[in-house]
Amino acid sequence: MSELIRVAVDAMGGDNAPVATVKGAVEAVAESNALKVFLVGKKEVLEKELSAYSYDKDRIEIVNATEVIEMAEPPVLAIRTKKDSSIVKAMYMVNHGEADAYVSAGSTGATLVGGQIIVGRLKGVDRAPLAPLIPTEKGNSLLIDCGANVDARANHLVQFAKMGTVYMENIMGIKNPTVAIVNIGAEEEKGNALVKETFPLLKNCPDINFIGSIEARDIPSGYADIIVCEAFTGNVILKMYEGVAKSLVNVIKKGLMSSLKSKIGALLIKDDLKKTLGNYSLEKHGGAPMLGLKGLVVKTHGSSSDIEIKNSILQCVTFTEQKISEKISAKISQV
Amino acid sequence: MSELIRVAVDAMGGDNAPVATVKGAVEAVAESNALKVFLVGKKEVLEKELSAYSYDKDRIEIVNATEVIEMAEPPVLAIRTKKDSSIVKAMYMVNHGEADAYVSAGSTGATLVGGQIIVGRLKGVDRAPLAPLIPTEKGNSLLIDCGANVDARANHLVQFAKMGTVYMENIMGIKNPTVAIVNIGAEEEKGNALVKETFPLLKNCPDINFIGSIEARDIPSGYADIIVCEAFTGNVILKMYEGVAKSLVNVIKKGLMSSLKSKIGALLIKDDLKKTLGNYSLEKHGGAPMLGLKGLVVKTHGSSSDIEIKNSILQCVTFTEQKISEKISAKISQV
Repeated sequence: MSELIRVAVDAMGGDNAPVATVKGAVEAVAESNALKVFLVGKKEVLEKELSAYSYDKDRIEIVNATEVIEMAEPPVLAIRTKKDSSIVKAMYMVNHGEADAYVSAGSTGATLVGGQIIVGRLKGVDRAPLAPLIPTEKGNSLLIDCGANVDARANHLVQFAKMGTVYMENIMGIKNPTVAIVNIGAEEEKGNALVKETFPLLKNCPDINFIGSIEARDIPSGYADIIVCEAFTGNVILKMYEGVAKSLVNVIKKGLMSSLKSKIGALLIKDDLKKTLGNYSLEKHGGAPMLGLKGLVVKTHGSSSDIEIKNSILQCVTFTEQKISEKISAKISQV
Repeated sequence: MSELIRVAVDAMGGDNAPVATVKGAVEAVAESNALKVFLVGKKEVLEKELSAYSYDKDRIEIVNATEVIEMAEPPVLAIRTKKDSSIVKAMYMVNHGEADAYVSAGSTGATLVGGQIIVGRLKGVDRAPLAPLIPTEKGNSLLIDCGANVDARANHLVQFAKMGTVYMENIMGIKNPTVAIVNIGAEEEKGNALVKETFPLLKNCPDINFIGSIEARDIPSGYADIIVCEAFTGNVILKMYEGVAKSLVNVIKKGLMSSLKSKIGALLIKDDLKKTLGNYSLEKHGGAPMLGLKGLVVKTHGSSSDIEIKNSILQCVTFTEQKISEKISAKISQV
C-alpha cells in the first residue's frame, strides 16, 4: 500500500458538528482506502460520537483541541488567540507536514485567514483564492476568487486564472478550459480600473485559454469554465446565485397555490422539481478549495451534512493524488 | 390647464423602434393629459409610422434627427461626433429647457455619457447614478448605482443613498425607506476598502434610514428598500438576477420533461407559472432613471415594447410633478 493521504478535519466546525463531521469521516474512510482522517476537536465529545460506528481504527485518529472558534468571532483575533482551537490545530498539522489537507464547515473567515497565515502560500503565489464550483446549465464553472482577497490587484487575478486552469484540467478533467474575466460589457475597452488593467495581461498570458470578458448574466449558462474576478465581486456572484434561486423558488411555489389547476399540477411535478433543483444547488458541490497553499484547504458550507463532509474529504484525495499544488507551483513560475 | 410636461423620446432607439416608440408615445399621451411628447428621429420614418394613429396633434411633435447611434458604438465618440443623432438631439432639448425629460431604449453607454455631458448634473451632485427598480419577494428595491459610475468614491455612494431615498419616498410612496450597502458580510468591519470607508459615512448621515450592510443573498428577499453599491457591483447584481432566473427556468423546464407525470403537471401549471415569472421579471418595471441630472433621463431596456416605452414616458410625468430634481438638490445640499 502506498502512503496514506492524511486529512485534518475541523470536527467542531459547522451547524451539524460533531455529528455530521464524525459520520462524514467514517463514510469517507470506508469509501477510500488511500485515506487517513484526523478528527480535530474536543477529545471526549469526539470519542463518544465515534463510538457509535465501526471503522478502520488505523485510519481515523482523534486529535484533542479544547477550544472552538465560533462563526461570529473576528477571524484574525480568533486565529491569534485560540491556539488550542480545532481550526488552528488542524491547520498547523498541515503546516507541519502531519496532514496533507484540511477540511472545515466552520468559520469561513478563520479558515481563510488561517490558510494564508498558518498553512502558508506556495512559493511564488501572492494571494490564495477561494474557488468554489458553481452550477451552470452545462455542468460547473470555477468561480475564482469568491471571498479570500478583497481589493486584489491585476497580477493576482492572472495567478487566479492559472491556478483555476490547473484545477479544472486535473480535477474536473476539462481539457484546455476556457477562462473569462467578469466585466460589465463584452468589449475590451469596458470595465473598471482593475479589469482594464487585468484584461491585456490575461490576453497575453500564453498558458491559459482566455476568451475575454463575461457579463454576469452569462455565468449561469456556462459560457466559460473559469470565471476570474476580484473577491468582492465573486462573493456577490455566489450569493446572488443563492438569493435569486431561493427567492424565485419561493415565488414560483406561491404562484402555484393561486389556482386549483396549478395546485394539482404542483403535486405532479413535485418529485422531478426537487431533483432538478437539487442538481442545480450550490451545496451539491461540497467544499470550495482554497488554491495556492502548501496543502489543500477546503471550506465547506456551515450547514454541511455528513455527505458534504465526506465529499469534501474525498476531494482532498484526488487533489493530493493529482499533485495539484506541485502543478500550480510549476504553472505560476512560468512567465 | 397647467403647463404640459414635455418628454423627448429617442424614437430611433431600441430593437423595436420606431414601431414601439411611436406606439408607446401615442398610448402615453392618450393616458395622461399632462403630457407632451417629442419624437426625435428621422422625420419621414416617424411621420409615416405616426400616420397610422389618431392622437392629439398638439401633444405629439416630431423633431428631425438624421443620425442614429448604434448599440455597439463607443459611447463617448458617438456622443461627440453624431450631433444630429436622435440621442444627442433629444438630450440637448432637456439641456436647453425645451423638454423636462428624456426616454431611450437605445445605447445605454451613449445615454449614460450623454446624461452626464449633455443634460448635466444638478449643482452639488458629483456623479449621476443609474437606478433601476428590481423585483423582490416583498415588491421592489432600488438598486443604485447599476452601471453609470465605475470606481466611484465613498462620498458618491453617500449621495446615491440620499438620491435613492428621495426617489423611493416620492415616487414609490415608501415612508422613511431603508438603505443598505452591499457587502460581503453583515458585520461593520467587513468589506473592501470602499465599503469600509463608506459605511461610517452612511451611519452618520442624519437624513437617511441606514440599516447597515446587506449581503447579496438577501437582496432578492427585499431586505432593504435602497441597495447602495458601486456601479460595477450593481451591474453584476442586475445581470445575475437576469442570468440566474433565466437559467433556473430553463433547468426547471427541462426537469419537467423527464417524466410523463411531470409533463402533465407542467401543462397544468403553465398559465400561473407564466404570470408569476412575469411579475418577477426585471422588464416589468420599465425604465431605469438616471438620478441627479438637470432633467430626468430614463433608460429602458433595448427590447422594450410599446408598453414599456409608455410606462417610461409616464414615469417622467410623476417624476416632474413630484419635483424630484428639486428635492434631490435640497437633500444633497444638507450636511
